[in-house]
Amino acid sequence: MRTITWSETNGGSIHLLDQTKLPGSIDELVIRDPRELIGAIQRLSVRGAPALGVAGALGVALILRNAEAENWSKDAIAKSILELKNARPTAVNLAWGVSQVEPLIEGGSKKVLDKALELAKEDAESCREMGRIGADYLIEKLGKKKLRILTHCNTGALATTEWGTALGVVRELHSRGLIEEVFADETRPLLQGSRLTAWELAQAGIPYRILPDGAAASALFSGLIDAVLIGADRIARNGDSANKIGSLSVAVAASQVAVPFLVVAPESTVDRNIESGEHIEIEFRSDSEVTTFAGVNIAPAGSETYNPAFDVTPARYITAVVTDKKVYRVKDGEAL
Amino acid sequence: MRTITWSETNGGSIHLLDQTKLPGSIDELVIRDPRELIGAIQRLSVRGAPALGVAGALGVALILRNAEAENWSKDAIAKSILELKNARPTAVNLAWGVSQVEPLIEGGSKKVLDKALELAKEDAESCREMGRIGADYLIEKLGKKKLRILTHCNTGALATTEWGTALGVVRELHSRGLIEEVFADETRPLLQGSRLTAWELAQAGIPYRILPDGAAASALFSGLIDAVLIGADRIARNGDSANKIGSLSVAVAASQVAVPFLVVAPESTVDRNIESGEHIEIEFRSDSEVTTFAGVNIAPAGSETYNPAFDVTPARYITAVVTDKKVYRVKDGEAL
Repeated sequence: MRTITWSETNGGSIHLLDQTKLPGSIDELVIRDPRELIGAIQRLSVRGAPALGVAGALGVALILRNAEAENWSKDAIAKSILELKNARPTAVNLAWGVSQVEPLIEGGSKKVLDKALELAKEDAESCREMGRIGADYLIEKLGKKKLRILTHCNTGALATTEWGTALGVVRELHSRGLIEEVFADETRPLLQGSRLTAWELAQAGIPYRILPDGAAASALFSGLIDAVLIGADRIARNGDSANKIGSLSVAVAASQVAVPFLVVAPESTVDRNIESGEHIEIEFRSDSEVTTFAGVNIAPAGSETYNPAFDVTPARYITAVVTDKKVYRVKDGEAL
Repeated sequence: MRTITWSETNGGSIHLLDQTKLPGSIDELVIRDPRELIGAIQRLSVRGAPALGVAGALGVALILRNAEAENWSKDAIAKSILELKNARPTAVNLAWGVSQVEPLIEGGSKKVLDKALELAKEDAESCREMGRIGADYLIEKLGKKKLRILTHCNTGALATTEWGTALGVVRELHSRGLIEEVFADETRPLLQGSRLTAWELAQAGIPYRILPDGAAASALFSGLIDAVLIGADRIARNGDSANKIGSLSVAVAASQVAVPFLVVAPESTVDRNIESGEHIEIEFRSDSEVTTFAGVNIAPAGSETYNPAFDVTPARYITAVVTDKKVYRVKDGEAL
């Protein structure tokens, strides 16, 4: 089953693997109403920058299908597209996916859908390419040996259409027999690491251990990690990278023990409109994500939280950004 | 209700506030059997270095009461005391508490109990003293203004007999009108921050926010924190400090943005037998602490984990160690 697909049944629909239910159950969401898609994006049923790019493009096709069937006004179409584009503020790919198909809107839903499916195909190819480039770079840097990789959040097939970004590099290394073990940060509050990354690694037969986010520095300082690989939701021109909350912490710890810290993301995640990370808007999410766990209250009633969905890692802590095009050595001052 | 007390009812018993149940319910454990006490310590029903010191001393009194009632052999007594002493390896205070009363064992349970109750009283006084010394130091360093303090794990009344170590400094600052807000790391895997620290702060009327451990670096880099205050389970002569897993991560992040990082602990937590942190044994705990929550699986079945209960923060990241005696400026090379 794939993360996000299009189906022609019932007048056209988007099928999503519901990532809020994994690993407990494998549920498919069939989405016909664009407002349902926005809900699914905000609930994180679909997440991960590249997957959101495809969701944005396919979402426009879905809007046009609905518009054509129900004779929506141009204004109604534009409003619906804008809502989709702004469903989450930090990941640049969602808006990027929408903008890729916007010039085709006048041509109708078929043209938009064709382009969206092309983007999905390109995403899959781009992930394979990142995997190869990242694996080659690590071998060049660390030598041809079995590696112990630490990762944060989920950057695998579930964050893309298939294969993955940072986890795509891990898959590529594994296919070359060069993975000893993956340390997967559990990634609070929503546990994308223990729920999603661990599930993908188990499926792929790649050895892994799950660790509390706070234990990453301990693993790094104990010499258990050869390299850190993470994804990104938006990368500024200077290399500053927004990624899931907790990434900065790992980057800073890695820098202290000289463990390479790599950001792996497609070129579409690079926002060349912004010079540095200070221009990246950070999404804040609800208190209940932190104060409840599996439906159980874990904090005193009424507790407030500090719950940013992302943090920005300054370029000085990032050894390199690996895209589907090349390796940018940002710590050495190379801009994107 | 107090964290740990002695009661003469039923031939003598230790009463514990069961910290595994907070904040959902306030349960008291009444312990008459020394093996039950070891279970409660290992389950973390009672935890926190100073509280464990008192538990160690009172535990010896409990062993002697049982021994006197049931005519145990000297060997049986010694074996039981050794088991208690080694119930958890990292916190030096547990063994310290036992060793404080060991010379009195020949004198019988009354002498041991008197000494244990004296230690409990001294712990309470030492916490007040640490609070004053720590508050004075922060005011000297940062000026007399309302402070935003980040803390990790629980170092409050629940970790001591009353008042607290790092949280004792917060209470002292609050009593002087100098706390703006406390950022309490939730502290995975066992959530001592969201469950215990938040509960204590709510009870004390001190404003707080709970944050995922991975968000601490974001708060620090965003300029939201004036100082970090944590406790310790064991401090080496050079200032290297073992504390709850995740502390190192916060220390490293604080060092990058020049936010003072203070370790607050009584002199009894200083292990002058060891030169540096590399000699501190780290307790590793079960996979299920990380892979399940409130009985719900949050990771694929069979997932292994990296779950150290503590990490060691090197002295170079610690601005100062505050004890009940003085401030040691360890980053500047002052040894303990």
